[in-house]
Amino acid sequence: MTQETNRQWLLAARPVGMVKESDFEFREREIPAVGEGEILVRSEFAGIEPAMRGWMEDRASYVEPVALGAVMRSFNVGHVVESRDPAFQPGDAVWGSFGWQDYAAGKPRDLVARKIRRPDLLTHYLGVLGIPGLTAYFGLFDIGECKGGETVVVSGAAGAVGSTAGQLARIKGCRVIGIAGGPEKCRWVTEDLGFDACIDYKSEKVGRRLSELCPDGIDIFVDNVGGDALDAALARIRRKGRVVLVGGISRYNETRPSPGPSNYMALVIRSARMEGFILFDFWQRFDEAEAAMLPWIDSGQLKYRETVTEGFDKLPRALIGIFAGENIGKQMVRLS
Amino acid sequence: MTQETNRQWLLAARPVGMVKESDFEFREREIPAVGEGEILVRSEFAGIEPAMRGWMEDRASYVEPVALGAVMRSFNVGHVVESRDPAFQPGDAVWGSFGWQDYAAGKPRDLVARKIRRPDLLTHYLGVLGIPGLTAYFGLFDIGECKGGETVVVSGAAGAVGSTAGQLARIKGCRVIGIAGGPEKCRWVTEDLGFDACIDYKSEKVGRRLSELCPDGIDIFVDNVGGDALDAALARIRRKGRVVLVGGISRYNETRPSPGPSNYMALVIRSARMEGFILFDFWQRFDEAEAAMLPWIDSGQLKYRETVTEGFDKLPRALIGIFAGENIGKQMVRLS
Repeated sequence: MTQETNRQWLLAARPVGMVKESDFEFREREIPAVGEGEILVRSEFAGIEPAMRGWMEDRASYVEPVALGAVMRSFNVGHVVESRDPAFQPGDAVWGSFGWQDYAAGKPRDLVARKIRRPDLLTHYLGVLGIPGLTAYFGLFDIGECKGGETVVVSGAAGAVGSTAGQLARIKGCRVIGIAGGPEKCRWVTEDLGFDACIDYKSEKVGRRLSELCPDGIDIFVDNVGGDALDAALARIRRKGRVVLVGGISRYNETRPSPGPSNYMALVIRSARMEGFILFDFWQRFDEAEAAMLPWIDSGQLKYRETVTEGFDKLPRALIGIFAGENIGKQMVRLS
Repeated sequence: MTQETNRQWLLAARPVGMVKESDFEFREREIPAVGEGEILVRSEFAGIEPAMRGWMEDRASYVEPVALGAVMRSFNVGHVVESRDPAFQPGDAVWGSFGWQDYAAGKPRDLVARKIRRPDLLTHYLGVLGIPGLTAYFGLFDIGECKGGETVVVSGAAGAVGSTAGQLARIKGCRVIGIAGGPEKCRWVTEDLGFDACIDYKSEKVGRRLSELCPDGIDIFVDNVGGDALDAALARIRRKGRVVLVGGISRYNETRPSPGPSNYMALVIRSARMEGFILFDFWQRFDEAEAAMLPWIDSGQLKYRETVTEGFDKLPRALIGIFAGENIGKQMVRLS
């Protein structure tokens, strides 16, 4: 089905508290023309990331905020429709920052466009081979310096980053404890993904369960969530332990600053560290991570799950949904 | 003057909130006998460290808590009186964990005893060449990876750790901003120690002044204090910045956990890290640090100041005093 216009969701308002549908505005435009050195991409799936909440705020960060009235930023997968850059051919599968619209035109560099080596795994490039999977890879191995044989705890364990980070740690021979919300997520994490255990933060006391499951403490904590789980993990961090800060989804929709981790002084007495990063620090090494993970994906060692919402009109709703914890694995929207 | 008995201050009670004199109990004992492989040390000065507050609590940490009824732990300088270890001779100047007492007997290893290479600088081994100075050295250079030419902010700048850390950063060609309480401390830090500026947290807004003084942000924050200064520094941390956690004196006497740094998520968007350590991680490298700092001390580049309280009976009071910010430079007690 060819989309004859370019549907777009614009950022209409800076969100206050929880993001809501009225923060976005729908419109249709002509399909853009392709200038010299540019490509035209038709997106098929848009990835929904917690980080998008931050991009909506008018606040200095690692990327420019999305301007009011501009197309909402997102990383999508799709295909090249037209190309005036010799490195790209019509039909090439690509992923990049194409936004909440059917068609994006621009220089590949400005679109952060990368060719997809395995078109048979198209949507994987929104998940395990895309932003969340690469975040898990570099977070665990580079920031977390995971060398195997250690005790690793992952919050947001049923999310796209957490599920990948935990499996990568398992592949390296670590003992892996997940933290997730609800029995369905915990079951998936332990039974399908092979985590050694999963704590249901909705029904269990995270600190007490961590003490039971990690009697010798935690070597690496990969944190997507912040809040109480971070404090509980800090209290149990081992000597020379590492807290890998991927994000803090529990805080993204707050209207006022919430307290930080009260137990941060554990970093002193355990000679430990807490370190953040943004994925694009590792831009030059994406191929390395993909090459490492593809064999594990092909062999079934590294499993991957998607929650696909159907329909371009559902984009705002899908973003709201991830803050309610509605997704298991990677949340994406098919732009049908 | 020879002390004929062994005066001691014992830990009498676990402190609740601010440490107080009644948490200690005075007694006198015989001078201890010296067993095989042991040394007997007569202490002359006892160093007063913020960390001592932690040692008084019945809580797992990097060292055993001081037992109730045991001599209060402290690091002192003094001289060997008697030795049954061939590596030590009577008259040797030493520093080590000799406690709040005139005489300590034990194996040098158990006393954490080290010979003092420069007896002419005896009390320096409680300060710039002792625990605080070595903490500053390894904190700045190893944890902070200070390589010069960067912007360094130091809290507790008029204390023994902060004043040394700031001067070391200056020696390496960094721009150094201190944070201290009151005009006298700030004047000492800028006029005598050569810090580029000092913020008086008692009369100035730390965040606003940091923005003015560090318009491009902070590369390294050496934190002795915690609390608002840590949050203000995190908010201004630069890309790949480092927060060196030495301590958090603002929190040590609290009865309930206080919030952690609300701005810790700045570590994510700036790809920065916050790392703690304990000095004894670097035990094997103390000589290296001493060798590096001695020429700077001898040349007057690295200045050092002491606040000496006179009298064995004043030990508890001196400890309380550092939490009230009464000292400039290293607080110690002469055990006269």
